[in-house]
Amino acid sequence: MSTTPKPLECLKGLKVLDLSQFEAGPSCTEALAWMGAEVVKVENPKLGDPGRAAVFGSPDKDSTYFLIFNANKKSITVDLKSAEGKKLVLDLAAKADVMVENFAPGAIERLGLGWDVVSKINPGLIYAQVKGFGEGSPYEQNLAFDMIAQACGGVMSISGMPDGPPIKPGATIGDTGTGMLLAISILSAYVEKQRTGKGQRLEVAMQDAMLHYIRIAFATQARTGVVAGRAGAKMLSGVTSPGGIYPCKPGGPNDWVYIYTSRGNEEHWKRLARVIGRPELADDPRFSTTAARAEREKEVDEIVGVWTRTQTKQDAMRLVGEAGIPAGAVLDTMELINDTTFDDRAIMQTMAHPKVGPFKMPAWPVRHDGQPAEVKPSPLLGASTADVLKGWLGKSEDEIAALKAGRIAG
Amino acid sequence: MSTTPKPLECLKGLKVLDLSQFEAGPSCTEALAWMGAEVVKVENPKLGDPGRAAVFGSPDKDSTYFLIFNANKKSITVDLKSAEGKKLVLDLAAKADVMVENFAPGAIERLGLGWDVVSKINPGLIYAQVKGFGEGSPYEQNLAFDMIAQACGGVMSISGMPDGPPIKPGATIGDTGTGMLLAISILSAYVEKQRTGKGQRLEVAMQDAMLHYIRIAFATQARTGVVAGRAGAKMLSGVTSPGGIYPCKPGGPNDWVYIYTSRGNEEHWKRLARVIGRPELADDPRFSTTAARAEREKEVDEIVGVWTRTQTKQDAMRLVGEAGIPAGAVLDTMELINDTTFDDRAIMQTMAHPKVGPFKMPAWPVRHDGQPAEVKPSPLLGASTADVLKGWLGKSEDEIAALKAGRIAG
Repeated sequence: MSTTPKPLECLKGLKVLDLSQFEAGPSCTEALAWMGAEVVKVENPKLGDPGRAAVFGSPDKDSTYFLIFNANKKSITVDLKSAEGKKLVLDLAAKADVMVENFAPGAIERLGLGWDVVSKINPGLIYAQVKGFGEGSPYEQNLAFDMIAQACGGVMSISGMPDGPPIKPGATIGDTGTGMLLAISILSAYVEKQRTGKGQRLEVAMQDAMLHYIRIAFATQARTGVVAGRAGAKMLSGVTSPGGIYPCKPGGPNDWVYIYTSRGNEEHWKRLARVIGRPELADDPRFSTTAARAEREKEVDEIVGVWTRTQTKQDAMRLVGEAGIPAGAVLDTMELINDTTFDDRAIMQTMAHPKVGPFKMPAWPVRHDGQPAEVKPSPLLGASTADVLKGWLGKSEDEIAALKAGRIAG
Repeated sequence: MSTTPKPLECLKGLKVLDLSQFEAGPSCTEALAWMGAEVVKVENPKLGDPGRAAVFGSPDKDSTYFLIFNANKKSITVDLKSAEGKKLVLDLAAKADVMVENFAPGAIERLGLGWDVVSKINPGLIYAQVKGFGEGSPYEQNLAFDMIAQACGGVMSISGMPDGPPIKPGATIGDTGTGMLLAISILSAYVEKQRTGKGQRLEVAMQDAMLHYIRIAFATQARTGVVAGRAGAKMLSGVTSPGGIYPCKPGGPNDWVYIYTSRGNEEHWKRLARVIGRPELADDPRFSTTAARAEREKEVDEIVGVWTRTQTKQDAMRLVGEAGIPAGAVLDTMELINDTTFDDRAIMQTMAHPKVGPFKMPAWPVRHDGQPAEVKPSPLLGASTADVLKGWLGKSEDEIAALKAGRIAG
């Protein structure tokens, strides 16, 4: 089976003015672009979104970091320090359905593009902001990045080995995790706008957004009365045994298989006992109940580990999974990028970037009528200036040439 | 400042038929409920969503796990094994805008509620499914839970100490992370439906969804050609120094502060040198450039750690943050739940549950016109049966009584 991606048209006609940078804002607007919205990045003429140069990008060659968060967008450069440039952005805001920004606290207001200003020009505008900390938080003036949000939002405190320091999950929950929540609120506000014509102001703080992703830890804490701790690869919410990762051959850093026997289904253990060649343990009273196994967790883990060490993680996953027990190999990013079934399903797509060249990346993972959204290249800096000035503002070629000559837009 | 939550009306009139269970599906439909949709959980009459009993809930007292993922919803119980019960759900599906399910592969089809069936009854239906693995994946028949998705989707491989085993982040990226992406596609499909009248089929696999949250790791791998590894609390994407967590007094498991000096801003180091009482290091050539500090990373970490050990994490965060350097204390779940500024901002709200009693939990973190969505209690099993049968299907009181007497609906 091979799936052809398609340009989705769900959000056809939705205009997004995107002043956001790095990841939290751009991941949000990119999701909207994949759904068919017209997303126009407004960038400074010199270097643009600092994400272009971040992590070893250069002015001649955008970083892979930039490509991955800015697919399917347009770019226009505007000198926001000039009165004429600011006027141009206000004119664009007057035409937009959505405006998104994630500058440092107070910066958008200093640019003269705050909610008070633009909502008067366009009462139908959905004005969406990402900050590190919420208005009214003691830290509301502080800067934040992904790792600061993960630290202050509780994510790090519940990630790591029980006897080790907190670790920062490799997933950028602070950035993309926040961006996804904002996208949900933007789309909901857009549905309301189609009914009422009215816009609204949306604000999300990265610290606050983290709480949404660790609600299991709050549920557990509410039940136990004790602060949620760190559990390595095991579950925070209570003991299931066997449950966790088990070592596989040939013993590399990611040669592990996750096996999870549900507390609610004693069949899992019976089946596993057969898979690992220890059928006599299925009904052994030392192991036959969840409670009994939880008491002998180390012993159980060792019994399972004796078998998993004789298997590759893929074989272990297949054999345990086929027996109807949830199991998953710990796959690394190289194994994932080289697994061609992701290409066949268009979950991985290759962006044809005009300067960087072909770049394979994960696409939007939800399939619409069987097809994933098509990944189109991230824009070169200012690539769509004329297109947008004409399409959104009806500027003539002469007017556009004058704006370019005056270094207002480029 | 104290913020009053409000019932949001963004999605007023949107009808969601929710056959989902546990977390991935319910987190998605709960987000829609917070935005104002009418979400009706269809549950089996005996025990309902297994999440009610999961993690130490009981039939008389829903688990905190259930409360946290099912706020603001309605519940109707239907015996899906009876022909009349199935007919009832098909009648509800005919009235719904959205139907969501996350049963094991093939189960919804065996229930006679597959896409082929319901799309014929309601061509405007948005039919949204969560599976563990994608159609066409070698593992498409496998079961998955949060931890399996985190293992197979690369998240665990990039989380943990560099010399330690993979860990599973405490955040439930596999479940809630997947649910949020599905919500974005559902809302986009709903926007399209309002234009075209047509529904669509949406499918997301939890493994695929994980790739979306670890795109930085793919960007880094693309740049370096080497598989992404584990970096403890540090960043995967490259060295910034100082950057990471630093120990604070009194030395408890979460007494750490994250300090991040940007590679792009040398001012950060100069300011930090002053904050930590070592102003002479600001211009010391051994430390004055990013490259120099990266070479002496351990030495730099020790210099910063000497100072942080004299501070609490809160003081360190405040002092470093006020100097304009991104910093964040590693806050634990108890500190977060006890921080009343979250209550003041209604980021934490207390659900008045009729049986469990008051239950404080994180609310939807995006504020709409300054106000967060109001958290309403999760429904008792079958609490809204009569309400929904009347409201959606126009059933009379006698008809409803007959359905209840025949144990078709309860």
